[in-house]
Amino acid sequence: MPNRSIVTLTTDFGINDHFVGTMKGVILNIAPDAEIVDINHAVQAFDVLDGALTIAQSYSYFPVGTIHVVVVDPGVGTARRPILMSTEKQYFVAPDNGVLSLIYSREERIRVRHVTGEHYFLRPVSNTFHARDVFAPVAGWLAKGVDGAKFGEEVSDYVRFNAPKPKTVDGNTLRGVVLKVDRFGNLITNFTPQDVPLLFQPTPPPFKILIGKQEITGIRTTYSEGEPNEVFGILGSMGYLEIASNRASAVQIVGSGRGSEVNIVLEGAAAASNGQ
Amino acid sequence: MPNRSIVTLTTDFGINDHFVGTMKGVILNIAPDAEIVDINHAVQAFDVLDGALTIAQSYSYFPVGTIHVVVVDPGVGTARRPILMSTEKQYFVAPDNGVLSLIYSREERIRVRHVTGEHYFLRPVSNTFHARDVFAPVAGWLAKGVDGAKFGEEVSDYVRFNAPKPKTVDGNTLRGVVLKVDRFGNLITNFTPQDVPLLFQPTPPPFKILIGKQEITGIRTTYSEGEPNEVFGILGSMGYLEIASNRASAVQIVGSGRGSEVNIVLEGAAAASNGQ
Amino acid sequence: MPNRSIVTLTTDFGINDHFVGTMKGVILNIAPDAEIVDINHAVQAFDVLDGALTIAQSYSYFPVGTIHVVVVDPGVGTARRPILMSTEKQYFVAPDNGVLSLIYSREERIRVRHVTGEHYFLRPVSNTFHARDVFAPVAGWLAKGVDGAKFGEEVSDYVRFNAPKPKTVDGNTLRGVVLKVDRFGNLITNFTPQDVPLLFQPTPPPFKILIGKQEITGIRTTYSEGEPNEVFGILGSMGYLEIASNRASAVQIVGSGRGSEVNIVLEGAAAASNGQ
Repeated sequence: MPNRSIVTLTTDFGINDHFVGTMKGVILNIAPDAEIVDINHAVQAFDVLDGALTIAQSYSYFPVGTIHVVVVDPGVGTARRPILMSTEKQYFVAPDNGVLSLIYSREERIRVRHVTGEHYFLRPVSNTFHARDVFAPVAGWLAKGVDGAKFGEEVSDYVRFNAPKPKTVDGNTLRGVVLKVDRFGNLITNFTPQDVPLLFQPTPPPFKILIGKQEITGIRTTYSEGEPNEVFGILGSMGYLEIASNRASAVQIVGSGRGSEVNIVLEGAAAASNGQ
Repeated sequence: MPNRSIVTLTTDFGINDHFVGTMKGVILNIAPDAEIVDINHAVQAFDVLDGALTIAQSYSYFPVGTIHVVVVDPGVGTARRPILMSTEKQYFVAPDNGVLSLIYSREERIRVRHVTGEHYFLRPVSNTFHARDVFAPVAGWLAKGVDGAKFGEEVSDYVRFNAPKPKTVDGNTLRGVVLKVDRFGNLITNFTPQDVPLLFQPTPPPFKILIGKQEITGIRTTYSEGEPNEVFGILGSMGYLEIASNRASAVQIVGSGRGSEVNIVLEGAAAASNGQ
Repeated sequence: MPNRSIVTLTTDFGINDHFVGTMKGVILNIAPDAEIVDINHAVQAFDVLDGALTIAQSYSYFPVGTIHVVVVDPGVGTARRPILMSTEKQYFVAPDNGVLSLIYSREERIRVRHVTGEHYFLRPVSNTFHARDVFAPVAGWLAKGVDGAKFGEEVSDYVRFNAPKPKTVDGNTLRGVVLKVDRFGNLITNFTPQDVPLLFQPTPPPFKILIGKQEITGIRTTYSEGEPNEVFGILGSMGYLEIASNRASAVQIVGSGRGSEVNIVLEGAAAASNGQ
C-alpha cells in the first residue's frame, strides 16, 4: 500500500499573509491525507532565479514520489503556461518561467507537460492567485493519485535558463557573484570546487578572494576555525564557496551583499592550470 | 473510517517564540493523529479585526470537519468567554471578542457555544496563555472525537462587529480604507465589486482612485500588464480592490499604508447609477 | 499498533533559507510516516542558552515518544559530539554543547549517548551542515524504530551549564536579567516565584522593580488589567516574572532589552524573609 503523498511548497509568498494557508486548504480539501511540508516561502519576491536556487537545494533529499509545488510567478494571469514536470522519482508543479531550470540541468530524464486539464482547477480561476486556483489543486489531484498524463500534453519548448557561472577575466582572475546571503550572514557565491579546484586542495597555492574592499586569503574547513572577526572562505553545504566568519555575520563585516561581484585571483602557475 | 482530523492555527503570536510550538504539543498530546496546519501567525498583535480578516480569507478552502483555532486575544485571563463555533461544515475555537465576525456574516447556520467544560483544559489554567491552556486542548479533544455539545451551552449574545465598509461621501465619491498590505506591497482596500460595479466593467467610465498623493486612473486584470512603476487598481484574489504595481511594491511608491483612506471618484452619470 | 512518530525541530536556522526544508526531506526520506512539527527556528544565531530556554519551554507538552531535534551548533564540524539524550518519555538529538542543559536539570532519569553510528549519517558528512547530515538522519532512524542503544555508547561527561539565576545584591535587592523579549514586547526575566515569593502574594509588600530608567511598582494578574502605557510585572506563562504593558510593547516603553539588568528592591522585613 502506498504511503501518504508528500507535497512540498516553495514560494515567494512570505508567511505574513493568508496565501500559504489557503494553498494548504485547497490541497487538503482534495487530498485530505496528503502531508504538506514547507520548504521555503522567503524566495525573493518576483525572483525566479532565487526560486530556482532554493528548490534545487532541497528537492533531492525528499522521498521518491514527492510532489514539489514551486510558485514564483510574476506573470500570473498571463499566457505563461502552468507545467507539471517529472523526473524518474519526483513531480514538480510550477509556472513555466524557468523556476525549475536548475533541476532540468541536474536530472537526466525529465518530462514536462503543459497543464491544460482545467477541470482540475478551482473555478473560476482568478487572474492573480494561480497558486490557489491552479497549482495547489493540480498538486492535490496528483497526491490523490491522478496520473500525470491526465493533466496535459508533453512539451519540449519549456522555459529554461542557466544559473550565472563564474567567468575568467584574465589568466589570473575568475569573476563570480554572490547568489544569496543566508541567515547567519554567510555570502554564498557561485564558485564550485569544479570552478576553482586548487582553492579547496589541502594546501592551496597563494590566492586572494576580493569582495568589496575585503581581501580574503584563508580557506577554513569549519566555521569555528575562524579567528574572531576574520572573514574567510569555506566550502558550504550548498556546494558553493561561501564567505563566512566565526559566530559573526560576514555580510555585516564585508558590507557587500547579494549580487555583489567576487573575484578570485590565483598566482601564476596555479591560475594557468585552472584555465577554463 | 474517518480521516484524521485537521486542525488549523491562526494567531498573532508570530513564530519567534515558543507559543505556537507549545500549542502544537498540547494538541498532539491529546490527539496524536491530528494534522496541524499553520494558516498564519502574523496577525497584527492585539488586532482582532486583522485576525477576523485573516481567517475569513482561508477557512472555506479547508475540508469538511476542519477545526480552526483562532487566537487573537488581548483580553486573555479576563471574563471574555472561550467559544466553540460551528458551521454546517467546520469548527472554530476562539475567544469571544469578535474575531469570528466575518464568518458569522458569511455562514447561514452557525452555532456558538460558551466553552465551560473546564475538565478539558490544561490545569492550572494560566492567566496569560489560554491558547495553550484552553483553546489548544479544546481543539485537541474535538480532534479526538469529543462531541461539540459536551463543551458547553449554546449562547446567542456572542460578540460580533462589522468589517469597515466603504461610504458614499457625495454623489461622486466613495470613501474606503486600506485593510492591509500584503507581502508584495499590494494595498488591499475594502472596496468589493459590489461596492463599485462600474469600476470592474470591461470598459469602466472615467474614474480616479485617490490615495495619499497618488491619483490612479487605470484598472488592470493581471499584475504583469502594468507599466514599470505604474500604480493601478486590480481585483485581487481576496475579492477586494487592490492598489498594485508590476513586480514592484505599490506601498513603497504610494507611501500610504494600512489604515489609509482611499477615495474613488466616478464621473457624473456613472456615480449616480452607483448610488448606495 | 504504534502511532506515527512525532519529530520536532528547534534551530537557529530561521526560515528564509533551505536549511529547514532540507532537514525535513532527510527525515521523511528515512521515515515517510513521521510527523514533523516546527517548534521554533528563531533561536538567536549561535546562542546555545537561547536554544536551551526555547526547547525547555515546549518539550514537556508533547506526547510520550516524541523525538526533539535541537540544533544550535556554532561548533559544527569540530570535535563536539552529536548526542542522543532520552528521558523516560522522550528523545532529544542535539550537539553536545549544553543546549539540553535545562532539560537535564528538570528531568530525573536521563540517559545521554554519544552518537557514533556513522552508518546512520548521510554520506559524505559535510563540515558545515550536520543538521542535514547527522541530526536529521538520526532522528529519521529513531522515528523509523531503530533502538536508541544502536546509535552509540552512554556518556556521563556531557556538557551542561546552569541558566543564569537571580542573585542577592544586598539585604533589600535581588538582581536578575532579561532572558528574552517576546513577540508582544514583553520582557521575560529570570525571576521565578521561588526567587521572590512575596512579589506574587495576593497583597505583596512594597517593592520596586527597576529596569533601565523605569521603576515598576505594580503586579497584575492579566495583561488587560494594565492602564494605557503602564508598565507592570506579571507572572508569565513561562513561569517567569515578565515586564509587560496592556496592548502595547513594554520593550519599546522601557527601552531596555535582552540581557538588561533587572533589580527587585523589597522593603525591610519582606526582603529579610526572602533571604537566599
